[in-house]
Order: sequence, then C-alpha cells, then structure tokens
Amino acid sequence: MKPIEEKVASAEVQEIFDDIKRTRAVDDVNNFWKYLANEPRMMKSTWDALKTIMGPGALDPLTKELVYLAVSITNNCEYCMARHGAAARAKGATDAQLNELYAVVGLANMTNRLANAYRVPVDEQFRETS
Amino acid sequence: MKPIEEKVASAEVQEIFDDIKRTRAVDDVNNFWKYLANEPRMMKSTWDALKTIMGPGALDPLTKELVYLAVSITNNCEYCMARHGAAARAKGATDAQLNELYAVVGLANMTNRLANAYRVPVDEQFRETS
Amino acid sequence: MKPIEEKVASAEVQEIFDDIKRTRAVDDVNNFWKYLANEPRMMKSTWDALKTIMGPGALDPLTKELVYLAVSITNNCEYCMARHGAAARAKGATDAQLNELYAVVGLANMTNRLANAYRVPVDEQFRETS
Amino acid sequence: MKPIEEKVASAEVQEIFDDIKRTRAVDDVNNFWKYLANEPRMMKSTWDALKTIMGPGALDPLTKELVYLAVSITNNCEYCMARHGAAARAKGATDAQLNELYAVVGLANMTNRLANAYRVPVDEQFRETS
Amino acid sequence: MKPIEEKVASAEVQEIFDDIKRTRAVDDVNNFWKYLANEPRMMKSTWDALKTIMGPGALDPLTKELVYLAVSITNNCEYCMARHGAAARAKGATDAQLNELYAVVGLANMTNRLANAYRVPVDEQFRETS
Amino acid sequence: MKPIEEKVASAEVQEIFDDIKRTRAVDDVNNFWKYLANEPRMMKSTWDALKTIMGPGALDPLTKELVYLAVSITNNCEYCMARHGAAARAKGATDAQLNELYAVVGLANMTNRLANAYRVPVDEQFRETS
Repeated sequence: MKPIEEKVASAEVQEIFDDIKRTRAVDDVNNFWKYLANEPRMMKSTWDALKTIMGPGALDPLTKELVYLAVSITNNCEYCMARHGAAARAKGATDAQLNELYAVVGLANMTNRLANAYRVPVDEQFRETS
Repeated sequence: MKPIEEKVASAEVQEIFDDIKRTRAVDDVNNFWKYLANEPRMMKSTWDALKTIMGPGALDPLTKELVYLAVSITNNCEYCMARHGAAARAKGATDAQLNELYAVVGLANMTNRLANAYRVPVDEQFRETS
Repeated sequence: MKPIEEKVASAEVQEIFDDIKRTRAVDDVNNFWKYLANEPRMMKSTWDALKTIMGPGALDPLTKELVYLAVSITNNCEYCMARHGAAARAKGATDAQLNELYAVVGLANMTNRLANAYRVPVDEQFRETS
Repeated sequence: MKPIEEKVASAEVQEIFDDIKRTRAVDDVNNFWKYLANEPRMMKSTWDALKTIMGPGALDPLTKELVYLAVSITNNCEYCMARHGAAARAKGATDAQLNELYAVVGLANMTNRLANAYRVPVDEQFRETS
Repeated sequence: MKPIEEKVASAEVQEIFDDIKRTRAVDDVNNFWKYLANEPRMMKSTWDALKTIMGPGALDPLTKELVYLAVSITNNCEYCMARHGAAARAKGATDAQLNELYAVVGLANMTNRLANAYRVPVDEQFRETS
Repeated sequence: MKPIEEKVASAEVQEIFDDIKRTRAVDDVNNFWKYLANEPRMMKSTWDALKTIMGPGALDPLTKELVYLAVSITNNCEYCMARHGAAARAKGATDAQLNELYAVVGLANMTNRLANAYRVPVDEQFRETS
C-alpha cells in the first residue's frame, strides 16, 4: 500500500490531515497517517481516539507517551518506538527518564515470565485492591 | 515448584525476605518472592534490580508502576496485573487514571499492528530525536 | 545458515522442491523453502501440512491467506507479511479488502488488551456456544 | 474495576448501550461493554470503530470474525476467544471451518518463527506485489 | 469443540492414538490429542512432526523439552507449561535445572526488550558466525 | 541513545566493562553493553544476573544458550538472535543442532496456539508432576 500525500487526498482525508496539523501545530503529518489514509474509516476512528485519550485527562501527557513507548518496546514495533520516543522527548523526557523507563520495561518483561513459569497464585490482598 | 515459606527459608533467602519487608514496610512478602525463593541467585538479582530501579530515580514511583502494569497487560500476565494494579493503587492511582491507562495500552497495541501492517517507514525527524 | 539452491539439493529435498513448484505452478520456490531445506524433516512436515491445510477445505483459500496475514502482522514477521500479502493478492484480495483486514487486526489487538486489563469474565452465553 | 450495569449508567453510556443492543438485536450488552463503560471516551471510540469496520464492507462479516478469532488465539485472550468464537458461530461458522481455522493459526505461528530463525530475506517478487 | 475419546474415534484418528500410545508407552493419550482429533489432517501432521523432531536427533531429548517449556513460558500457554514441565520431569529434569531454566527465560525476555529499546546494532562478528 | 565507548566510560561502568572482558576473555564488549551503559544501575544488575545464571550451574552452558536463542526467536529480537546464535556456535552448537532447535521452536509456537484455540484442560497427571 502506498502513502497518500496531501495533494491527492480526498476531502474526508484532507480534513483529518488538517485537524492533526492544527492540533499538533506541525506543518506535515507523519508517515503513519499517510498510510492509514488508505482506510479513511479507520484513520478517522484512530485519530479521534488518540486525540481524546492522549490529550488532557487523568494522566499527564508525558506519562501517556512513556506508556505508549513501553508497549511499543514490548511488541518490538520499530516505527512506534521511533515515533513515541520522539514524542516523549518533545514532551520533556530526559535521557535519565528514558533509560529508567527501558529498565522498567525490561524488568516487567522478565518478572511476567517468572510469574508464568512458577504459576504464582494471586495474593488475596491484590485481588481486593486491584 | 512449591512456595518457600519464611519459617523454612535458608539464611540467604531469609535475608532477602527481611529486606523486602523492611523496604516495603509489610508484614509478609507476596507470593512471587516465595516462589522465586526456589532459585536464590535469581531472587537476589531480581530483588536488587527492582529495589534500585523502582525506588527513587528519574521517574516518579507511580509512573513506573503504571508502566509495569502496561507491560503486564500487553503480555496478559494475570499475577502481574493484580500485583502492579494493587501497587499503583497504593501509590495513589485513581480510577480515572487506571481507566485512561487501559485506553492508552489498548491504542498502543492497535497502532503497533497498523504500523506493522502498512510497513510504515520511520520519518526522518523521528530518527534524529528519538 | 545458508539457503540451499536446487542444483545442490539432496534427492529428498529436490523432491519437495519439485512438489512445491508443481502444486503452485511456479518456476522456483520462494526463499523460505531454500532455508528450511537445511532441516529436511521439518521442511517435509511443514510442506505436507501447508499443502493439506491451505489447499481446498472448509474455508476458501483467500480467507485462509487473510488469516495467515493477520497472524503475521500480530507477530510482526516481516518475511511472512510480504509472502502472505503477495499470496492474498494472487488469490484476488483487493486494496479495500486488505485495508479492512488491517483495521480488523488493529482492533482485535486493542480489544484483546482491554479485555485483559479489565479482566472481563466470560459471558455465560459465549461459553455455551463457542 | 467493576462493571457498570444499565440501570446505573450515565446518559452518555446508556446511549451507547442502546445503540449496541439495537445494532446487534440483543437484549443486553456483553460484559466487555459493561467494563469498558468505566472509560466512556474509549467505550464510544471502540464501539464506533467496531460498528463501522465489522459491519458491511469489503470483506464479508464471517471472514472478519474469523480474523478476529485468529488474532485472539495468537494473543491467548480467553475472553476474546469465547466472544468471537460465539460470534463466528452466530454468523454461520461450522465445526469444520473452525477446526481448519485453528490449524491455519497454528501453522502461521510456526512458520513466523521459522522465518525469524533463518532470517529469510524477502523474495523480490513479494516486495513488488504485497 | 469437544474432545474425541478413543471409543468414538474414526479409524484414521484411532491409528494415530495407537501410534502415540505405542511410541510413548502410555495407556491413554493426553487431552491435547483428543481435542486436536477434531481436525484429523492437522492431528496427523502435528504428530508426525513431533514424533520426528522430538525423537532421537542432534539434541538430546531433555534439551528439547526444556526449549519447548521455555517457549511455552514466554507465550504464557498454561496447558503447554504443565505438559512440557511434566515431560521434562519424566526425562530427568531436576528442581535445580527447572529453576535455572526459569531464570534464563526471564533474563532472555528482559534483554530482548533492552536490545529493542536501545535499538542496538548487531556487532559485525555476530553477523559472521551466527 | 548513543553507545558509551570504553575511553569515555565512568569508573563504575569501566569496572563492569573490565569484568565482562575478563570473564569472557574478549578484547572488547559487544554493543549491547555499550548501550546499556547509559543506565549503569541496570547494566550492573543485568551483568551480575547473566554472569551468575549463564555461568556454571545445573544446566550446561550450551543448553542455556539454546534456550536463550529459542526465546529470542519467539520474540523476534534480531540483535538477540545474532548474539546468542554466535554464542551457541562458540559453545559448540553444530548446524544440525541449530536446525533442530529451530524446528522445536516452530513446533512449540504452533502447539501453544492449538492448545489455546481448543482451550484444552490440563490433564490431571501433569498437574501433579510439573
């Protein structure tokens, strides 16, 4: 599938391109959106969801970018690591914070498998409060 | 493998049990440690790493618990979700924050696969800054 | 491990190469088989299984290619996405169908994690009928 | 997090419950929606996307359910396997079709790892057509 | 899907049941085969492959069971962990060996994500020899 | 994040570099460590764990490398496959052994999903012995 550039986009897609650029104050949308423009229904749905959930809410924007990055590392998505690493930087993430994040992601992937291996039963107090 | 209870633990394992209880100000260690006590070398190494990385650092403790939870949800580790969900609560996570976190984790797992499917090339500006 | 080209293949491997070319009406086997030829037992077993299951059966051939592609996207296997994307095209998949498939795969990966996160109990009526 | 039952739902959530019931011609929504109702923004976004993408489109509804099920099996999501297994049945999937689907999913997960292990380079003809 | 018991199995399935019991010197096949008997083509193909690859070969049988268990832990497959844990025991695995295996699996899952996160380029000497 | 070369490393990191080189009798550490040196706490913890667990123990060193490789293939970590493939070679793995390993990893990933798909209940005798 080829990316859809702004100049050839349908009005429906162009409107989403414009909203992304306006919301993020950027001159061009990133490649993800140009490819997803091949499926305008999914493009619109994904943009609406990201705009809402990644915008102001219960968690601060940097925390949400770090969570996004943690999932992308776990799934080994190269594009997503680059994209959300850059976004985390833009929202103020320092080298020290990213290094610590990588450590947490590594440890979580390790202890997830140790818990699997030993088939550890859930402690009663965690059932109640989680 | 069976869990190792405090009363039958070796001195080496007991010392780690004591350090966990002291550090976390709890009366008993959670099941994960009682099972991991079957491999004292790994138990010691895992505890030392978690104590260091999950303690004071560049990211605040709640952010690190949320990242831990996000990875555990992505990997579908039931024990880890219960354990780190409870820990996030204990560090002050609200319902609104957890609900938003779940949404971010869902969206990241979705866009990770959309980026895979379209084989989206990394934008030049992300290479530079991430 | 290096690929095994036809001219140097053992009689056992050559026979499988020939069957793949005959079955698929192609002049050369794709790279996957040249590498798997390093383990002739696994090559034979894999070819026999694919020939049987991906051939005429209860599901039509295009549906099976789309399912193969969906799994490959979820697992982020670059070779497999290219191979089964091409196979889906050869079996008639349109741009509209592939774009919709990518959307379904994205949504499934998302709701899988939302179901994990909320630990949603299985509805009684699904237990009975699935 | 607890499920939100219809009688206590906000007007915003109730409207989505009603649309799900109307669209699917069911008397009650399944548990997934009652839990996701804890995050109404994500609930609305997810329902809108599923209604659009899983409805009439380029692929027939049963094919899309089978793809959803294939991803859920790959990710080992118990709720999702039960839910989309039941949905596939409701859309006419036979035992023979589901058994064949499981076989395809198994084979795809196997050859994905064989392609990884041998680091098989993508054939030129697949790059052009996929 | 329901398991297929020996007394109601087709001749084709019964023959595989018999070969499994003879090869493994057991009185009854384990549940996996009774379920897979719903798709006799896949059952035959899977049994043939396992009989060949897990039998005498380049690696000793215990090593192969440990590898099987390591993959099953990584994928969080409860049935497979129980089945291959028991098989490893039957082939002589000690508590010390299983505990060490779990540690290796945990560490590999951790360093896999650290390598992802830092996008570590492959060292030249590894390209040559792996 | 950029790799940290020996000449600019802090004393703390240099000490770990030296221990890796001494323990493995190599002239330079591999890239993984130069990147992980950005987070010295995690570097130290990871090295200590790997040195202990991958050193002499209950399982022989080659078996542990093969397990490491099997997990890395399952997770599709390119760096880790190259690194642990080379390490397995250095510890004596033959072509025949690696080919057989790849087959086992493929089969395990397949039967893991078949067990998921059929939701096979764990046999009583496996519960007792695993």
